[in-house]
Amino acid sequence: MIAAYQALCQQRVDGALQDLFVPPSAELTRLYQAMRYSVMNGGKRVRPLLAYAACEALGADATQANGAACAVELIHAYSLVHDDLPAMDDDDLRRGQPTTHKAFDEACAILAGDGLQSLAFTALLDPALSPQSDAIRLSMVQVLAQAAGPAGMVGGQAIDLGSVGLQLNQQALEFMHRHKTGALIEASVRLGALASARAQPSQLECLQTYAQAVGLAFQVQDDILDVESDTATLGKRQGADIALNKPTYPALLGLDAAKAYALDLRDQALHALRPFDAAAEPLRELARYIVARRN
Amino acid sequence: MIAAYQALCQQRVDGALQDLFVPPSAELTRLYQAMRYSVMNGGKRVRPLLAYAACEALGADATQANGAACAVELIHAYSLVHDDLPAMDDDDLRRGQPTTHKAFDEACAILAGDGLQSLAFTALLDPALSPQSDAIRLSMVQVLAQAAGPAGMVGGQAIDLGSVGLQLNQQALEFMHRHKTGALIEASVRLGALASARAQPSQLECLQTYAQAVGLAFQVQDDILDVESDTATLGKRQGADIALNKPTYPALLGLDAAKAYALDLRDQALHALRPFDAAAEPLRELARYIVARRN
Repeated sequence: MIAAYQALCQQRVDGALQDLFVPPSAELTRLYQAMRYSVMNGGKRVRPLLAYAACEALGADATQANGAACAVELIHAYSLVHDDLPAMDDDDLRRGQPTTHKAFDEACAILAGDGLQSLAFTALLDPALSPQSDAIRLSMVQVLAQAAGPAGMVGGQAIDLGSVGLQLNQQALEFMHRHKTGALIEASVRLGALASARAQPSQLECLQTYAQAVGLAFQVQDDILDVESDTATLGKRQGADIALNKPTYPALLGLDAAKAYALDLRDQALHALRPFDAAAEPLRELARYIVARRN
Repeated sequence: MIAAYQALCQQRVDGALQDLFVPPSAELTRLYQAMRYSVMNGGKRVRPLLAYAACEALGADATQANGAACAVELIHAYSLVHDDLPAMDDDDLRRGQPTTHKAFDEACAILAGDGLQSLAFTALLDPALSPQSDAIRLSMVQVLAQAAGPAGMVGGQAIDLGSVGLQLNQQALEFMHRHKTGALIEASVRLGALASARAQPSQLECLQTYAQAVGLAFQVQDDILDVESDTATLGKRQGADIALNKPTYPALLGLDAAKAYALDLRDQALHALRPFDAAAEPLRELARYIVARRN
């Protein structure tokens, strides 16, 4: 069931994203090509799915969350483009394709990433994508800026880079992940909920607990897959984290304990959704999928 | 007179910016240091000055434009950090100091730039910095995202990089500058005007004409200084543009014609301000200063 829902969300967000990559003049063609290349790459669109599913969990139509879905995917895509740069993780391959700085060049990749960040904010302001009231859209911009910024995702990347070769304990590792990947996953859920225009504070709180558990589960499973899966299935270099001597959950807890932890986080996520009815089923399915996926 | 006004604006915006660089946790200290280093560098704060002066030209208190002033300076600072990277202009010196990737490292500079872009949006959302209504603040976010993004400043950087070694005609050169530096200068004026909460459409139009002329004059004068000034006065490598074989106005028009053009643009800017009273004097002074400055 999650595969069908995921395909639907992917189609929905990809349709909305397409329109953002039309260059306003011929001189900008290459930059827009690089941005499009960085985003329209068959990605799973987990963050857009979370936004759509949170919006639907509150009983609103998923299309209300088109702007939110685009925004979080654009931020995610930009972070990958910059993360792959030679000065950062120096990755040549992403989802089985050359990374943006390989397909274009480094300068173009830096600028494409910069442009994608701006576009994310634009997506929250386009009334066709984000039909909410001014007050709600302003809250959404605030959530995005906070999650993407130095106190969120960018901060997490900085901590991650500073941690290579260090022996982090579990608390420090989780602090890093709550910033690096967790902040944007939490924002995806919150933006989708805000986009519904009917989110109650207590509901936002439950959804935040859900998002925190799911975000961490996502990372634990990523670390497990980095050990267990192969390069072809992953679409990126297997063992990349180990090769870079990055701290991971399997390295810290052992592989079996890491797997048990992922399942525990899934259950925490499901527990947080208990006040919600069947409309939250996609969110529940996603929590189950995240710890079961193989890539 | 402009020197005193500039010092006042600098003090005002630097005071507001300071507060944005307090790391929310010890783990983020280095990233916040890199961001602070990239911004708190004694810059002239021309863009904040434009925001404050536009706000005052409409009869509002300049402090209304604190958020606008911070936002445009943060975008400007991030663009310099990324522009200086080895894959871009590869500059070691900025305002007489090591560039961010030299003072820290490349990865940290990429992330600091990314974080500064997010912070710029945050500055427009902080009610202490931006006390405007939701509708106005949303317009301000829109103006900033558009000006900073791929259809604005980032697009201009991409065109600039694509133009090295090419023979641009004046039209193509101006197209590049209208994006690379003009978009943010226009946004500075527009954001300041919006921040006044009393901008009429006809006034916004006059201010836009002013900003376009001033933005172009700024660039023409920069090109002239790159030929005429010395490294110590400029605080960056003299002749850097020529060394990179970048298209410049003196190269295109000849030095004397470039100087005449700068003066003509100044007069266009002053003409656009004719409907404004004495409250627009700082804007007028700035137009005069831009083509008279030596660094």
